[in-house]
Order: sequence, then C-alpha cells, then structure tokens
Amino acid sequence: MSDKVLLDYGSGGRASQRLISELFLKHLGNDELNRLNDAAELTLSGKVAMSTDSFVVDPIFFPGGNIGSLAVHGTVNDVAMMGAIPRHITCAYILEEGLPMDDLEKIVTSMGQAAREAGVTVVSGDTKVVPKGAVDKIFINTTGIGDIIVDPVPSGDAAQVGDAVLLSGTLGDHGLTILGTREGLDFEAKVESDCASLNHLLVKLVRELPEVHVLRDPTRGGLATTMNEITLSSNVCCELVEKELPIRAEVQGGCSILGLDPLYLANEGKFLCILPQAHAEKALEIMRADPLGHGACQIGSITDANPGKVVLITKLGGKRLLNMLEGEQLPRIC
Amino acid sequence: MSDKVLLDYGSGGRASQRLISELFLKHLGNDELNRLNDAAELTLSGKVAMSTDSFVVDPIFFPGGNIGSLAVHGTVNDVAMMGAIPRHITCAYILEEGLPMDDLEKIVTSMGQAAREAGVTVVSGDTKVVPKGAVDKIFINTTGIGDIIVDPVPSGDAAQVGDAVLLSGTLGDHGLTILGTREGLDFEAKVESDCASLNHLLVKLVRELPEVHVLRDPTRGGLATTMNEITLSSNVCCELVEKELPIRAEVQGGCSILGLDPLYLANEGKFLCILPQAHAEKALEIMRADPLGHGACQIGSITDANPGKVVLITKLGGKRLLNMLEGEQLPRIC
Repeated sequence: MSDKVLLDYGSGGRASQRLISELFLKHLGNDELNRLNDAAELTLSGKVAMSTDSFVVDPIFFPGGNIGSLAVHGTVNDVAMMGAIPRHITCAYILEEGLPMDDLEKIVTSMGQAAREAGVTVVSGDTKVVPKGAVDKIFINTTGIGDIIVDPVPSGDAAQVGDAVLLSGTLGDHGLTILGTREGLDFEAKVESDCASLNHLLVKLVRELPEVHVLRDPTRGGLATTMNEITLSSNVCCELVEKELPIRAEVQGGCSILGLDPLYLANEGKFLCILPQAHAEKALEIMRADPLGHGACQIGSITDANPGKVVLITKLGGKRLLNMLEGEQLPRIC
Repeated sequence: MSDKVLLDYGSGGRASQRLISELFLKHLGNDELNRLNDAAELTLSGKVAMSTDSFVVDPIFFPGGNIGSLAVHGTVNDVAMMGAIPRHITCAYILEEGLPMDDLEKIVTSMGQAAREAGVTVVSGDTKVVPKGAVDKIFINTTGIGDIIVDPVPSGDAAQVGDAVLLSGTLGDHGLTILGTREGLDFEAKVESDCASLNHLLVKLVRELPEVHVLRDPTRGGLATTMNEITLSSNVCCELVEKELPIRAEVQGGCSILGLDPLYLANEGKFLCILPQAHAEKALEIMRADPLGHGACQIGSITDANPGKVVLITKLGGKRLLNMLEGEQLPRIC
C-alpha cells in the first residue's frame, strides 16, 4: 500500500479491499467483521441501548489519546449511561486523500485497543475517501449498541427532589488539553485528556444500585450545560456547591490564562450520577474503588427551589445562576 | 435561527438545542428521539442486523434525490440485504459553518420522508459543526438496525453452483446521474438516480422464498465489483450474460460519451438475488409485482467453471473476465 491514503482506497474496488484486509481487519477484526457482509448479524437481549456520534476533534492526536480512542470511548460511554453493557460498535471513516498511512494506522490501532479494553467488538464498518480539501484529515463515526440491564433505565428526565448529585472526578481536563494542544501552549504542569471508557465502572454501579436516576457524561458544553439539560427535562432545580467542584490546579490555571470557565469545558472520561441521597455514600464507595472514579465526590443536590435552573452556591456563600453554554467556546472538541 | 449554519449550532449548548428542536425533531421526531437521552432505548427481537455508512456524495442535490434521502435508503438497504426488517436508524451530521439553512432543511425533510416510507424511526442523532473549509458542505452517517426474519441469513459467501443470478432492474442510473450533474452535462434524455429503499420488496421476497442464498446491492464499484466479492467469498464462478444486462439506452449513451463502463457504476436502488435456479421464476414474479423490481430479470448463473471469477458471455458469444474495479472511476458517488 501507498504511504498516503489514495482516492481509490474508498472506491469499493480492489484497493478498498486491500485497505480493509491489511489495516482494518488487522486491528479491529473478529468473526463477524471478517465476513464483510453489508451488515452484521448480532444476537442481543431484546432491550437495547443505541447511540451515535461523529468525531471531528482537532488536533487528531493529543496528550491522553487521539481521535480513534476518543471515538470508541465516547460511544461506549453514551451506551453505558443508559444502564447498558456496551456490546458492539460500528466504525465509519471519512478520510482525506493524502492522509499519512502511519497516522491512520496509529488511529486504528488505538481504536482496536480501546475496543478490547471496553469489551466491545467492531461489527460493521465503512470507509470513504474524499479529495484533498473536502475534509480535514479524518472524521470518524461510531455507533454503539448494548444490552440494557436495569429497569427503569437511567434518564435525563428522572432526577428527583432530594437526590444527590455525584461527579466521578475532575472537570475540564479534556477541553483544556485540546485547546492547549491546538494553540501550541506549553502548560507548566502536565494536562492531559481524561478520555476513557467508563462502562465497567458504570455496570458495577447500576448492578449494585439500580436506584440510580440519572447517568450522564458532561461532554460538549461541560458540567453547566449538561446539568441544565437535566434540570429542564426533570423540571427540578440543581444546587451545586462551588467549593466541592473538583478541578485540578493546573486546569484552573490554564483556564484563567485563556479566559475559559472549566464548568463549560468538555470532559470525556467523567460522569454525573444522580440518585437518592440515602444511596450517595454507597455510590461514592463503588466509584472510588475504581481508578476511573477515585476522585468521586458529591457536588450538589436536587431541590425544588428554582425548577429548570442550575444554581451555584459560591465559595463566598452567594448564589448565581449557571446558564447553558451560549456561543461556541471551542469548536471541534470531540 | 440564522439563515446559515453557525459554529455554535454544534456547541452542545443553547444554540444546539434550538437546532435540534426546531429542525431535527420537527422532521425526524418520535417518542424515543424526543427524549434526547445519550442513547435510545429499543426493543428488538434478539437476532438483529446492523450496518453503518457515511455519505459524502457530491453534489448534495441531484436528480432523483439528495444526500439525505440517499443516507436513509443506503442504510435501510444494507440492513434489508441480511433478510431483516429495518427498524431504526441513527443520523449523525457533520455540517460546514455557513451551509445554507434552507439546504439543511431540504435534506432533513427528505430524510424524514424516506424514513417514514421505509418504516424506520430515527432514534439517536448527533450534530457537529466544523469551521468553513474543514468539510465540504455536509456529510451524513446513518447506522441502521433491524430484526432478522430468516435463518440462515442471506450472505455473500452462500452462493452455490446451480444458482440463478437475478437483478432487480437497470444498471448505472445513480452513478451516471451523479457524474452528469457534477460535470454539468445535459443529457438529451432524462437520467436520474434510482435511489430507493428496497426493504418492503426484500421482506416480501425472503418471506416467500427463504431459500435465497445471497442478497446484495451493487453500490460502489457496481455490478462487476459486487459479483467479484461474492464469487471470491463463495469460491464459485459467476457467468453473466451480456445481452441480458438491463441498461437504459440513455445510460449506455452517457457512458459511451464519458468513457465509463455501466457495469462498474454505482446503483442505489437495485439488488442482486442469488438463489437455486428452481426458485428463479417465483422470485422474478415477486420482484416484478413491485414497482421497484418491475424490470427484474435473470442475468446469469453460478457455475464451477472458474472459482472466484466473474465471466461475461459477450453479445458475440465470446467470454471475458470481469475484474473488480481498479482505480477510482468516480469519487464521492455516495
């Protein structure tokens, strides 16, 4: 194969076949994918969760991951937030003519590794190659499916007055990393993306505590936007305690320099768990026992004070409304 | 909303919410999508088919369809080729900053219409907006899932010696239309894309004739490439009879002018059906009773002459090998 992606790798003809067998099947192959049918044949439990996401992050390589690992983690997490065990994902690539094959191989290698770690198989794929300039390097869509193991399913409209709001770890790491890398900033302290598949921890959590009302990962728009979506859907108020919000000093510092608010920055390896206050301690114990949740803490609670609103109780004891993200802080963050 | 797509429509914040509720839910909404959870909650039969495709066709509007209707038809067809009833699709959009909102609305309207006609619901979505120049107008990924209703599932490796090779209609219409439109060619006779969802016809066919061995739609790479894939997977020979191949005179004429071979052009509303010769007449009867299969005919048969090869019996009675597509005739055809 050429050392760059050529147009005819997406033709559906012989060159496509070569790319599929020598690159994609090598890193992502399994019995189902290897059959190369138009669709995969799967056996599922009956009640399933399905989610799709396209990834357009810029740059495609960044500290802590790349567009390939992110594409697996992101979709695995969205499926897992439904109280489901992610089983299978599909991967569709849009490649720019001239993309270095080494870059593509690094990305696909990461996807294979991330999929194995998350326990999902890649069951169907697609590759398009577009002429130089019609896309910026590489975009990836992943769509995931998994078996739902709880009833009722955790849902954004299920938060209730009296619930605790828990967060699995620090805020803003992914967003700041992407912006820092893009702008070529050299932070004094190391900042890297938190991107990770949370499914093993989430499955443990919902198995032990089916009382969980909401699971959600605060990606685009960050904690503030995600909490606003939840309070709107559930018609409740969320009171967040500023001094409890876990933010690394280096992330806070980077945000101050750049004029960003970490509460609006994307996270790719964190989740919010909202459940009755009586179960909060148990949930935190389960989360902290996992490396991906060791920084878990309670950051607030659900009240009936201002339905549909998110209120921040500041370090000085004042209150201020946290709105949804307005405008685009950061395009191409995921 | 603005009359052009703005970057913050993809931010995940308030502008994204507006785009989702005022455009996507308006045309694609249903109980599941309207919940706006991270993933959809579905009930499936247990044995399912799943397929993914990204659509990058250029131009985005063409006679007979647009990138939106094509994105629904393409994935619906891939799922249906597995002997499955397509149930649900996901839609993920990558939009270029500045795309006219009118264009986006036309595309999403077509998708809604195509989905309703095919009987599938859009259950999960995603929208990314990238800065001007990072993508050419709009790319769409659809991933589909459906309930498998036959056992064994039709498969590219299941063609057998003695099988008939049936085709549901004319060849090359989609490919020639795209190229003609792109190049601004004005064919004397009207040529338009054949893009259509074939699932209702296919479900009828496999319900009445579960003996079907292979179903496949000859998209990228055309009939010649698809048949090569099948003969390789099944380790059989396919003999195609040139005089039986249905090609519209205007398509043949356009191809002659442009130096294209219709056997390598993409089709988006046709399928190959390979099954025991004894069932061929019945299959053709079922196909011809449907408007999408009224031009169905037998174009060849499966033999043991040259395993892994596709042989064309020419109009003069000679034989020539039909290879897989080499090189890219037409980028961005779907």
